[in-house]
Amino acid sequence: VKNTVEVCLTPDLIHQHDLNNKVAVVVDIFRATTCMVRGLVYGVKSVTPVATVEECLNYGKQGYIMAGERGGQKLEEFDIGNSPFEYENPDFIGRKVAITTTNGTQAIEKAKGAEEIVAGSFLNLTATADYLTQKGKSIIILCAGWKGTPNIEDTLFAGSLIHKLPFIQMRDSTTLSHSFYLRHQKDLLGIAKQSGHARRLAGFGIVEDIEYCMRIDDFQDVIIFQKNTLIKI
Amino acid sequence: VKNTVEVCLTPDLIHQHDLNNKVAVVVDIFRATTCMVRGLVYGVKSVTPVATVEECLNYGKQGYIMAGERGGQKLEEFDIGNSPFEYENPDFIGRKVAITTTNGTQAIEKAKGAEEIVAGSFLNLTATADYLTQKGKSIIILCAGWKGTPNIEDTLFAGSLIHKLPFIQMRDSTTLSHSFYLRHQKDLLGIAKQSGHARRLAGFGIVEDIEYCMRIDDFQDVIIFQKNTLIKI
Repeated sequence: VKNTVEVCLTPDLIHQHDLNNKVAVVVDIFRATTCMVRGLVYGVKSVTPVATVEECLNYGKQGYIMAGERGGQKLEEFDIGNSPFEYENPDFIGRKVAITTTNGTQAIEKAKGAEEIVAGSFLNLTATADYLTQKGKSIIILCAGWKGTPNIEDTLFAGSLIHKLPFIQMRDSTTLSHSFYLRHQKDLLGIAKQSGHARRLAGFGIVEDIEYCMRIDDFQDVIIFQKNTLIKI
Repeated sequence: VKNTVEVCLTPDLIHQHDLNNKVAVVVDIFRATTCMVRGLVYGVKSVTPVATVEECLNYGKQGYIMAGERGGQKLEEFDIGNSPFEYENPDFIGRKVAITTTNGTQAIEKAKGAEEIVAGSFLNLTATADYLTQKGKSIIILCAGWKGTPNIEDTLFAGSLIHKLPFIQMRDSTTLSHSFYLRHQKDLLGIAKQSGHARRLAGFGIVEDIEYCMRIDDFQDVIIFQKNTLIKI
């Protein structure tokens, strides 16, 4: 039996995929999974994704750092928003974070039927690919997309990860993602900047975030989802 | 005001798009829209897409040629299946066809909120692009896909059509489709043969159909949907 890799281009297509007995790689490059990876590598103890602002506020009462955004902007009541730079605060080392975002945390929710959930980012692309290869299970890459639509940056990550996995490519969306990566492999940042989300973030003056989210292999750590929280392994 | 072009990669994502005041280009390269174009160019009077086998049989009682497939294979009660070669029968000239297929006819149904519906195929790619350019309305390309999932051949057509339209590209799925075309423009047939649907059809021994469906610009006719039927204009 050989392992397979498939891509779900948006959570709105999750009903087309069988998660059973597979490892789901959830990806929201701009910016949720990038933030999660950045924070956990920097020393945050755990990151708990929650679906609603209310849940996040409740975690805040229990001492969690409250993080997240709606429509790309920080919520007033929260401690931090959804910029990866906000996650490297020395005060956060050893602390727990609760996060809610427009796309990324919803995607993790939809991945819950999988045997294991991994949070993917360009920051730890190769480490994640190596972990998945060693694990030896079939993979579904679940792109968070933008409000249910496919997006450039998550599809690009899917293609980049596929490129590193010695697995059988299942479904046409896998070929589409891999081809997209192959066409743009010499300038991932260039095409990522053309995404609608990148342009929305640039409109808020957040250009450094985009460039940071496209950094490749800064970290060797793998982030997995266990007991409703993300941790570094 | 400039015109825009957007792509809906599968009918399962149609809720993400506003059809209002736009021209929808429905595409099911393997093989429904290719058959429709082929038949109408050859002399069929009209092609009426219907959702169910029962509806198709009812049209048959009214003298229509009954056409279509389920799961890629002809239905026993029908006159013809879903191969473009079956549509060039001299007996069919001037006659009406009713057709039901797994993906293509369902996609046309979902496009009905649009101001106008055009059936797209590689056979009349440039004619369709010229018509749309002249028309001067915003466009949504609706890929029929495979049972609700994105597919290679329809995405490739979307990218090919986008490439010929002097319109503003809206949404990341438009960039994804256009990039996919640009990567494979020197060998469209090669990548089309890798699609899951092409491999299923090859399994039925239908290799000529695939090659025929990828022929470009054999015809200069445009096919539109009017009063529930497709006609040549």
